Amino acid sequence: MLLNFKEDMSFGWFGRLQFKVNFKVLVIFLITFGFSLSASLAGNQPETSSLNLMPYPAKVELAPGQFRLSEKFYIGGEAQPGHRVFKAASRFMSRLSGRTGLFFEQDYLAGQTVTDQTRLFYHFDQPGRLIPGEDESYQLKINSEKIELRARTDLGLLHGFETLLQLLSADGGGYFFPCLQIEDSPRFSWRGLLIDSSRHFMPVEVIKRNLLAMSAVKLNVLHWHLSDDQGFRVESLVFPRLTQLGSDGQYFRQSEIKDIIQLASDLGIRVVPEFDLPGHSTSWLVGYPEYGSAAGPYQIERKFGVSSPVFNPTIEKTYKFLDSFLKEMTALFPDPYFHIGGDEVDPKQWKENPDIQRFMKKNNIPDEASLQAYFNRRLLKILTKYHKRMVGWDEIYQPGLPKDIVIQSWRGQQALVEAAKNGYQGLLSNGYYIDLVESAERHYLNDPVPVDSALTPEEKNLILGGEATMWAELATPETIDSRIWPRTAAIAERLWSPQGIRDVDDMYKRLRIISLGLEENGVQHLKNQPMMLRRLTRSYEIGCLEVLAKISEPVKGYSRHSQGKAYNSLSPLTRFVDACYPESFEARDFRLTVEKLVTSRDLRQAEELKNRLQLWQENHQKIIDLAETAPALKEIISLSESLKNVSLTGLEAINLIVSGQPADSAWLQTKFELLEEARKPVAECQLAIISGVELLLNSLKK
Amino acid sequence: MLLNFKEDMSFGWFGRLQFKVNFKVLVIFLITFGFSLSASLAGNQPETSSLNLMPYPAKVELAPGQFRLSEKFYIGGEAQPGHRVFKAASRFMSRLSGRTGLFFEQDYLAGQTVTDQTRLFYHFDQPGRLIPGEDESYQLKINSEKIELRARTDLGLLHGFETLLQLLSADGGGYFFPCLQIEDSPRFSWRGLLIDSSRHFMPVEVIKRNLLAMSAVKLNVLHWHLSDDQGFRVESLVFPRLTQLGSDGQYFRQSEIKDIIQLASDLGIRVVPEFDLPGHSTSWLVGYPEYGSAAGPYQIERKFGVSSPVFNPTIEKTYKFLDSFLKEMTALFPDPYFHIGGDEVDPKQWKENPDIQRFMKKNNIPDEASLQAYFNRRLLKILTKYHKRMVGWDEIYQPGLPKDIVIQSWRGQQALVEAAKNGYQGLLSNGYYIDLVESAERHYLNDPVPVDSALTPEEKNLILGGEATMWAELATPETIDSRIWPRTAAIAERLWSPQGIRDVDDMYKRLRIISLGLEENGVQHLKNQPMMLRRLTRSYEIGCLEVLAKISEPVKGYSRHSQGKAYNSLSPLTRFVDACYPESFEARDFRLTVEKLVTSRDLRQAEELKNRLQLWQENHQKIIDLAETAPALKEIISLSESLKNVSLTGLEAINLIVSGQPADSAWLQTKFELLEEARKPVAECQLAIISGVELLLNSLKK
Repeated sequence: MLLNFKEDMSFGWFGRLQFKVNFKVLVIFLITFGFSLSASLAGNQPETSSLNLMPYPAKVELAPGQFRLSEKFYIGGEAQPGHRVFKAASRFMSRLSGRTGLFFEQDYLAGQTVTDQTRLFYHFDQPGRLIPGEDESYQLKINSEKIELRARTDLGLLHGFETLLQLLSADGGGYFFPCLQIEDSPRFSWRGLLIDSSRHFMPVEVIKRNLLAMSAVKLNVLHWHLSDDQGFRVESLVFPRLTQLGSDGQYFRQSEIKDIIQLASDLGIRVVPEFDLPGHSTSWLVGYPEYGSAAGPYQIERKFGVSSPVFNPTIEKTYKFLDSFLKEMTALFPDPYFHIGGDEVDPKQWKENPDIQRFMKKNNIPDEASLQAYFNRRLLKILTKYHKRMVGWDEIYQPGLPKDIVIQSWRGQQALVEAAKNGYQGLLSNGYYIDLVESAERHYLNDPVPVDSALTPEEKNLILGGEATMWAELATPETIDSRIWPRTAAIAERLWSPQGIRDVDDMYKRLRIISLGLEENGVQHLKNQPMMLRRLTRSYEIGCLEVLAKISEPVKGYSRHSQGKAYNSLSPLTRFVDACYPESFEARDFRLTVEKLVTSRDLRQAEELKNRLQLWQENHQKIIDLAETAPALKEIISLSESLKNVSLTGLEAINLIVSGQPADSAWLQTKFELLEEARKPVAECQLAIISGVELLLNSLKK
Repeated sequence: MLLNFKEDMSFGWFGRLQFKVNFKVLVIFLITFGFSLSASLAGNQPETSSLNLMPYPAKVELAPGQFRLSEKFYIGGEAQPGHRVFKAASRFMSRLSGRTGLFFEQDYLAGQTVTDQTRLFYHFDQPGRLIPGEDESYQLKINSEKIELRARTDLGLLHGFETLLQLLSADGGGYFFPCLQIEDSPRFSWRGLLIDSSRHFMPVEVIKRNLLAMSAVKLNVLHWHLSDDQGFRVESLVFPRLTQLGSDGQYFRQSEIKDIIQLASDLGIRVVPEFDLPGHSTSWLVGYPEYGSAAGPYQIERKFGVSSPVFNPTIEKTYKFLDSFLKEMTALFPDPYFHIGGDEVDPKQWKENPDIQRFMKKNNIPDEASLQAYFNRRLLKILTKYHKRMVGWDEIYQPGLPKDIVIQSWRGQQALVEAAKNGYQGLLSNGYYIDLVESAERHYLNDPVPVDSALTPEEKNLILGGEATMWAELATPETIDSRIWPRTAAIAERLWSPQGIRDVDDMYKRLRIISLGLEENGVQHLKNQPMMLRRLTRSYEIGCLEVLAKISEPVKGYSRHSQGKAYNSLSPLTRFVDACYPESFEARDFRLTVEKLVTSRDLRQAEELKNRLQLWQENHQKIIDLAETAPALKEIISLSESLKNVSLTGLEAINLIVSGQPADSAWLQTKFELLEEARKPVAECQLAIISGVELLLNSLKK
């Protein structure tokens, strides 16, 4: 079992750095880095054409002509103020007006009745229910005179409005929609984003703006991680000490939760709460130590990783407490599913408590994993009483549990396959850990049901979908949006679009445009970088820092924890590394241009590359100057210096390539060593252009 | 009386543009533009030294040396978690850590007990009450070993923490605070910001981030305009139709109001609600037409200006309704003051209603102004019953009212003086209408009690302070912050600092730095401009637009309403003009540099100016290119072309100045005409550099 395995392992380098050993860390590290990127399936890539749609629809038929927009654009349908579609149509009109500057004549907040003036008609048969498997399909038909949007449910209409907004185009004559016909429906019914509001508190506005952005890319589940060692974030009227003592005053009122659920429902998004049990539970025990496995007292945990506090599953009062608590929370959260966490239980306190050991012996519970299974069965009984279906992480999977639970896999596809083979529903999160700041490509090619899957069609149907997970050890309300967006849009496409749509270059082309569109929903993934750089320098003149930030990335996976700084929940996440985006599009461009150069030897590419390299090289002196009055920048001076050296190397290599001269092998050797040196993280950052320069050098090898 | 006067006036140009006649508009227009800028009082300007403090403290004594910051910086005082100062100290530490990237050792969320490690000591005698006149003074003493912050009340401590954050400095050795001693207290006790949440709904996050920014510049009153023709924004449990029918679904729950009041209290800020009565009340009457003066039905007003719907003050059920409503609201808002608006009543419906006319005759009420006075007396009785003191706009001032009401003047200082002479307390808002996008200088030099005031010291004491007013006809949650900040910081200084501190250049120097610091409170005044420009262009390459936006300003006063677009509350406020800042600091710099050149003929200034002019001139082609795929930019092409022409003129003028050659008078004549032409607004914008180029030309006159 996992827990024993964990104890057998030795994590020397982690241990030396005082970072608490986190088993999940290592497993994901191994899986992610072992993940093959060669999965691109040439041949059956459908045509995604020139349309910047994401997720790309199941079926698009372009037609000639355009529907031209004017101030006389009226929307009409059968919905009334207050209803989901009416609100969606109002938002649609407001966003369309915002992008185009058009002063629409219609008072779309007061009425949307179909009249002679109507140009966009919407129609649906019935309100959609917020459950997995509900019909979310829609049809969109645009001709030069009118636009028709039809769906079985209003949920489908919401998706159609988003597609329509993505279709907005412009030319010299003004704004228009291209004529076409779209038939669209999702591949998976559970398309989620986990937001961790516990490690760092993510207040109402963070959740709301991210719900809006989720709906823009057709995600339909907010998995809301609401309790952990670092904070308990939901007001309980029955157990007020949960937040009074366990939250540092940072929690959601129940009225706020209700508002968020209402907004989510308006957007066709389910809200699945997670209360992590029985581990990851320090913050509960601060106010209610009597349910813990050790004597207490407990304090809110500031460090990250797996802590030892854990509920005592052997005393009846624990279940009485949880029953009352879950009675309150299952009423607050209307979704039919309820997530109980269940991951990463440290058995230490169970082993050390003689009463617990006695209980295990008495009840023939052979080990701590089985004790957790016992706890889960008790929990399941309570949840069933309150009409909820249980969801939990891999660890809750135990033969013998009823088949209506859902297993969410952070360990990998194999665990999911095994569960499906045994008849359990599953969700994939492994490979979608967006907090690890990997590339969009990596997530995009990660399929919940790969084409070579050994599952039968029935078993495949048990894989409900997947969830991107935004754990918040190293994210704050200021930075979380840039950790989620735009990369999560690529995951959204994986979960919505036909399996064959997996052309990486095409995805990136669309992703950049979609990223811009997301801003209008309030997410701050683009606009907070300059703000953070201004704060670090107390200056408006941050151009050189932006140049460096554009081609720097935070170190990947969990390695920020092993770079010398001991992070806790009070540590500043305002440094240069936090301002950097997880993935440098600029560096990707650079590498692609290098590829073109080394294959074509086209001089235009050489010029373009040289301009960039020159800019990067000359940037260094500006960084030095700026750092003189901004001590917080000192740590990145050697990163900037590396950029200068790598850029010089690139310039020299290009000159050789262009001149057709051979490269001296000793020179090459020195330069490869320089690149190796430059690969070393500085201030928890890495330069993203090194692989591009390496390609240049490789092309000079004999 | 005002109302009769209003009817006698003819507003041909307004009328033609279908803009509803707004008397307030015109009065402020006249007053503002007649306002003299020659008020700078040379001679008694205290030394504001090199410290970037705003508002500048009453007394600063610099000392040699520094207190150096390290990760061993501990804060200590007698406050406990949950208390105002404890929270303030926690925010202080978090912001300090955020700016410096320092990983402080202290768990400042768990405890702040004084120990040997403490370096920053805070002490206060008693909790501050949120009432005008409460002691807000503080003393700050920094030596190289420790920092002491003392105050009579915790409100003073809050101000001290903000001053300390503004003092954060840096050099090659790291971060430090300069050694000094500060004694500080405010000149006025009522230092407010009005936020209009009605014309455009400004949701919770807008209010919260602006409260944080207010506290950073020591403002202490949020005047919250919560109802108007365009929307009723507060949930009433007694009268639910107020928001059900009067808000388009955009309103504050009572729990949200409570949270905002709690945050404000934590920040030492009072929340004074305004429910505008009996006019500006269309949104109330949509759900409750029986209290209106006309038959109804009513609809939420989309247009701006003065609408005719008005409460019927002659029927008893109106007062029964208002009594119940005010009973609920006076309990919700704890502040001892309550604002009933009272401005701009259109007497039309009173005149047209025979029952109302009959009532007036029967009760010897000679005119509609007197009818409003009758209404106010009835309101005052209700408010008094609920232990509130009444605040209202100029119009409520009527001889015979009790002396504990407060008059807020939008008309001008003279009205305030008159009220004070009669023993009434007053607040100045005239001259602080920040929604009119005037310069910070204009507001800064506007003093509630000018040095030449004819008031006695006792009468002066009746002037409690002033309020910046952020009316929201042309502001949205995206743009409101840039309309408030940083200019409101200059008003905050006027209301806090000694009267003699009024050096405009020094103010601007500090204002720019303070503006950067405000960002960490979440206000989006700087970061939303690029976002808005990206949305308009659907592009990341917005450099040329930023160049143009930096020296463009929205047209001033109310003139956006007379530029051809008919604004209503659904109109897009996302165009170039909305992305522009109210005041171009870049243009101010340019003009100052021109002044130096024409007085000194220093060649360095000439070079600097030529570089800028060259950039502006060459910018035009880029704008043209960008506009090709961004139709929303078409309207600014001629603005950009004007910039090009004006810049060329500037370049020619500088060459003449530098060469010492005389300017041909015909040439000069042509160029002055060119400037006149370029002054004409384009797309509701004006170029802010014209006065600078005009100075260049003027220097070439014989």
